[in-house]
Amino acid sequence: MTIRTAILGYGNLGRGVEQAVAAAPDMEAVVVFTRRDPASVTTFGTPVAHVDDMGDWADRVDVCLCCGGSATDLADQVPQALAYFPTVDSFDTHAKIPEYFASCDRAASDAGTAALISVGWDPGLFSLARTLGEAIVPDSLEETFWGVGVSQGHSDALRRIDGVADAVQYTVPREEALESVRSGEAREPLETRAKHTRRCFVVAEEGADRDAITDAIVTMPNYFADYDTSVEFVSAEELARNHSGMPHGGTVLRRGSTAGGSAATMEFSLDLGSNPQFTGAVVAACGRALHRLVSGGVRGALTIFDIPLGALHPEGPEHLRAHLL
Amino acid sequence: MTIRTAILGYGNLGRGVEQAVAAAPDMEAVVVFTRRDPASVTTFGTPVAHVDDMGDWADRVDVCLCCGGSATDLADQVPQALAYFPTVDSFDTHAKIPEYFASCDRAASDAGTAALISVGWDPGLFSLARTLGEAIVPDSLEETFWGVGVSQGHSDALRRIDGVADAVQYTVPREEALESVRSGEAREPLETRAKHTRRCFVVAEEGADRDAITDAIVTMPNYFADYDTSVEFVSAEELARNHSGMPHGGTVLRRGSTAGGSAATMEFSLDLGSNPQFTGAVVAACGRALHRLVSGGVRGALTIFDIPLGALHPEGPEHLRAHLL
Repeated sequence: MTIRTAILGYGNLGRGVEQAVAAAPDMEAVVVFTRRDPASVTTFGTPVAHVDDMGDWADRVDVCLCCGGSATDLADQVPQALAYFPTVDSFDTHAKIPEYFASCDRAASDAGTAALISVGWDPGLFSLARTLGEAIVPDSLEETFWGVGVSQGHSDALRRIDGVADAVQYTVPREEALESVRSGEAREPLETRAKHTRRCFVVAEEGADRDAITDAIVTMPNYFADYDTSVEFVSAEELARNHSGMPHGGTVLRRGSTAGGSAATMEFSLDLGSNPQFTGAVVAACGRALHRLVSGGVRGALTIFDIPLGALHPEGPEHLRAHLL
Repeated sequence: MTIRTAILGYGNLGRGVEQAVAAAPDMEAVVVFTRRDPASVTTFGTPVAHVDDMGDWADRVDVCLCCGGSATDLADQVPQALAYFPTVDSFDTHAKIPEYFASCDRAASDAGTAALISVGWDPGLFSLARTLGEAIVPDSLEETFWGVGVSQGHSDALRRIDGVADAVQYTVPREEALESVRSGEAREPLETRAKHTRRCFVVAEEGADRDAITDAIVTMPNYFADYDTSVEFVSAEELARNHSGMPHGGTVLRRGSTAGGSAATMEFSLDLGSNPQFTGAVVAACGRALHRLVSGGVRGALTIFDIPLGALHPEGPEHLRAHLL
């Protein structure tokens, strides 16, 4: 039986989810829910319905993959969708996760279904790597490095500066910082400036003061002031040609000692040409897992910590034991 | 409530498990079971009992961590232990896992308890990495590299050669092979010789023919003939001084494309000063997880694919969501 999925919200992540579901042997996307006029949304082939009509699909969808943003969409949309379907989302506002979990847990329990929250790669796969590391080598130092990757939040901050027409910001991990953790030389958590640099590609408006723009960037608190930040001015054409991708990735690196005093290093890395496509693939696989768990009677809110990872794979346990163990 | 563990079998792995349990905030080792005379076994402090007296401990042990070898011990010992306790083991004879699983499943179900089989790092954490990779980026090439590490099986094969007094063999991954997978250059599974080399440190008996020993090594089928193998003769003192550790590790490396056609690389690596200490730490954490699952009503045989990874961590789900997600 094919797992029938809905996709709630159709931006970059929604498209990545639709592609991943289409490639899965055991899943299909039966509907995209949007707040826009459905006629205005062009998908890779999945029918589109208005979000207000979600209830009409309650009997035709096994799991709803929620692809809205964490800032404003998910906290409202997911509890609404839970009235009709199990849900998976990639809520990533770390500080608000406990509150969001409680809200989804109430909505899911009331509706007799389940919500798998905050999946993707961070939070998600990186959270698993952190948990495994802390459980297995507790006497150790752990650092997460991000990038090389485009940060939407930092790119947006650049675009708000006077005289900036467009811009893209890359977060770049410092190889020497990774090496200092990997080798055991680093004994204490690293400082912000030591871990990452920030590289900005900026299209200036005609006649804009480039020195003033550069100064506004490198002194901007929270975003850039605590980092070694480079600023490069490029043409709009060059920005479009070389910087329109959405690459990302990173490394969870743990180095310490096993209880008998021997060195141990654990490292989990991702290098992704497309952040939304990879995150979409994680969300899709988690949709499969959640459907299996709900079919087995699980209810309420869950995180990736609660999911047996074999459930993410299309094959059953016998196959996994024979071929992947 | 502290989780009371027994350790069945007290070699290198048993010692690693005892150390890991001693370092855990929520676990204690209450007994070591041995086939030897208990008076002849010196532990780090855990009382020792004879394996024939396991039944006396049924009410005083929450989970039994089975540290025997896969070749001869576990297939007999684990079903016996399951009569009294939930068990965790590191059974690693890949080809026999389905049969072993079935046998443990029967014994566990008959006794109304559970058996978590084949945990450690490979099988174990590497199995999880393979499963995650295949579930999330199915259109890709995956290779597992092992080492730099000591292979006991290959070292034993060296010691059986005429004229060899003692020997240690290291499996060494080829960095250029890792790079060819990582970069996407490799499109097909790599050949055996391309992935690893084998490095042998040999103590020759006095008067032995060293050329004959070298020839016997590099032409040995299955073990060395398919690899670029180097042989270095050392003194017994040098072998003891420089090659008595049990380092190991490796990398599960997957490179391919997400469904939308963008590159994706996933990499999970371990670099371990002591293979048995790290494996012991995994076994101990899995003992914690199994105790929680059994307390929740789970029965029968399980693998790492069936374990929600949050259960490996000493803290509860609320802490994990707030701090590690």
